[in-house]
Amino acid sequence: MSSVVFPPASAEAPQPFDCACIVGIGLIGGSIARALAATGTARRIVVLDSDPAHCARALELGIAQAASTDPAAVVPQADLVVVAVPVAQSGAVAAVLAPHLANGAIVMDTGSVKQAVVEAMAPVLPAHAIFIPAHPIAGTEHSGPDAGFAELFQGRWCILTPEPEAPPEAVLRLAALWRAFGSQVATMPARHHDRVLAITSHLPHLIAYTIVGTATDLEDDTKSDVIRFSASGFRDFTRIAASDPTMWRDIFLNNREAVLEIIQRFTEDLTALQRAIRRGEGETLFDRFAQTRAIRRGVIEARQADVPHKPEEENKS
Amino acid sequence: MSSVVFPPASAEAPQPFDCACIVGIGLIGGSIARALAATGTARRIVVLDSDPAHCARALELGIAQAASTDPAAVVPQADLVVVAVPVAQSGAVAAVLAPHLANGAIVMDTGSVKQAVVEAMAPVLPAHAIFIPAHPIAGTEHSGPDAGFAELFQGRWCILTPEPEAPPEAVLRLAALWRAFGSQVATMPARHHDRVLAITSHLPHLIAYTIVGTATDLEDDTKSDVIRFSASGFRDFTRIAASDPTMWRDIFLNNREAVLEIIQRFTEDLTALQRAIRRGEGETLFDRFAQTRAIRRGVIEARQADVPHKPEEENKS
Repeated sequence: MSSVVFPPASAEAPQPFDCACIVGIGLIGGSIARALAATGTARRIVVLDSDPAHCARALELGIAQAASTDPAAVVPQADLVVVAVPVAQSGAVAAVLAPHLANGAIVMDTGSVKQAVVEAMAPVLPAHAIFIPAHPIAGTEHSGPDAGFAELFQGRWCILTPEPEAPPEAVLRLAALWRAFGSQVATMPARHHDRVLAITSHLPHLIAYTIVGTATDLEDDTKSDVIRFSASGFRDFTRIAASDPTMWRDIFLNNREAVLEIIQRFTEDLTALQRAIRRGEGETLFDRFAQTRAIRRGVIEARQADVPHKPEEENKS
Repeated sequence: MSSVVFPPASAEAPQPFDCACIVGIGLIGGSIARALAATGTARRIVVLDSDPAHCARALELGIAQAASTDPAAVVPQADLVVVAVPVAQSGAVAAVLAPHLANGAIVMDTGSVKQAVVEAMAPVLPAHAIFIPAHPIAGTEHSGPDAGFAELFQGRWCILTPEPEAPPEAVLRLAALWRAFGSQVATMPARHHDRVLAITSHLPHLIAYTIVGTATDLEDDTKSDVIRFSASGFRDFTRIAASDPTMWRDIFLNNREAVLEIIQRFTEDLTALQRAIRRGEGETLFDRFAQTRAIRRGVIEARQADVPHKPEEENKS
C-alpha cells in the first residue's frame, strides 16, 4: 500500500484549536508553537516540559501563555496535544499524559519513525482521545526552545500515519493544520512510512556515519590528507554524520526491522559492484552507473513539482 | 608519506609558456585553455583533439589559435602539453604524442587517478620530455568544449604527483601555474593520492551509485514514495550518482587496489553497526555516531582555512 497525497491547500483556513499543549519545547515543539501562533490555528498555547528551564524560556520567548512541568496544570485544557519528544520516550510520555487528556483531544506525535511510536503510545492512550501519528520531514542541526522558527515546515512534507480506526475528520483537520504551516501532506500506513524513510533517510545516515568512521580509523597521515582534500562526496557525508547521535541511535533502534532489511539489500548490491571492480568488469559498472540516472530524474521532477530548491551543486571528482 | 602543501602564492607571476597544447578540449581541457588565456600564462594556445567538430568549435570559441586532429601539426610547437583525456586513454594518447614532443616539453595530465596514469604514460614518453602528473579537484556535470570556464579551478586543490626524478624547477613552474589559476597546490606520491581520493571521492561515489541502485530495484509503490519523499541524505546521493558513468567506470578500474581496500574497511565497519542495530546495542551506536564529529570539525576548519564555501545545509531526518 502506497501513500495518498492531499490535494493542494484550499483557501479555507483550518478550524482553529482552542488550546494546543506542546509536550517537549525543543526544535520541533518550539517551531510548531510558533507556527500555530503565526497562522492563528490555536487560540492558546501551553507547554509541558520536564525541564523547568525550558518552561521558563518558553514563557520568556512568548511562545506559550502557560508552561509547566506538571501535566495536570496544562494537559486537561488542550484539545490538541503535540508530543515532540525523542522517539524513545514516546511511550513513557503517553503514559504521563493519559490520565489528564480531555475528552476528544487529538494527540499528535512528531517522531521520525512511526510503527514503534504507534506501538508504544496507542495502547497507553485512553479511548476518549484521538491519536494521529505525524512526521514532519524537517529539521536543523540546532536544538532547544530557542532553535525553533515558524517557517521550519514551509515547503516540507508532513506524513500522517493514522491507524484505520482514526476518525477521518481528525485526519483532515490535522492535514489542514500542516498545510496552514506551509507543508505538503500525505498519509500512509506506519510500516510503509518506516520502509520509505529507511532508504531515503536512515540508510544514508548510517552510511555517512560509517564512512566518516572508517576515515577516523585511518593512519594519521592519510587521515589528515582526507580532511584536507575532502571532495564533495566525502564533505557531504561529514555533514550528514554530524547529526545528533542520540536522535539517530533511537531511530535505528526503533526502525530496526526496516533498516536491517535495507542494509541487507544495499550490502548485496555493493558486493556485486565490488566483485565487478575486482574482476575488471567495466560493462557491469557502466550499466549500473547509467541506470541510476532514471531515479535522479525522478527526484528532480518530484522536487520541481514540490518546492523551491537550491541550485544543483557541482559534481567534483 | 604525506602531502606537501605549497606556501601561499607569491606576487610573482609564473614564467609564461610559449605555446600550450591542450590534448582533449572537454570540460577540463577547455577550462585550462581559458585559464591560460585569462592569466596570460601561455602566449599561444593550440588544441589536439581526435574529434574534428571539437577542433572547429575550439577555434569558433576563440579559445585556441590553432586546432588539429593531427599531432604533427600542433604538438612540436608546444613547451607545455596538457593531456585532458579520459583516464583509460592516457597511455594510448601518450604514445601518439611521443614522436612529436619538443625537447624539454612539460607534459601534464589531469586524471582523477594517478598511479595507473603514471604507469601508462611514463614508459611511453621520451626521455627528453618532462612528465608531471596533476589532478585538479574540480569539475561540473557538463562536458565538451563549451562547458569549460576560466574560473573552474579557483579555490580548488590541484594535486601534483611528480616522480622522484622529475626536475624540481618544472614542478615549481606548474605549481605557480595552478596558483595563477586560483588553485591551492600540494604534491604527494601518486599512490598516496590514490588512497586519499579512494576515501574522499571514489568510495562516496560508489556508495551513492549503490544506494540509488538499491532504490531502483524496490517494488514500484515503495520506489515512487522514495522519489517523492526523498530527504536530504538520499537526495544528496542521487546528485552524486548522476555523475558521468564512463568517467567513473574508468576511475574504479584504474584505482582498483585502493578502492577495494577501502571498500573492505567500510564493509567491516558497516557490519559492526548492523550487528549493533540487530542486537539493540544503543551504546555502541551512540559512541560511533558521536566519534565522527571530530572529523567533521576538521573538515570545517580545513575548509574555512581554504576557500569560501556555501552555508551548511539543513539537517533533516
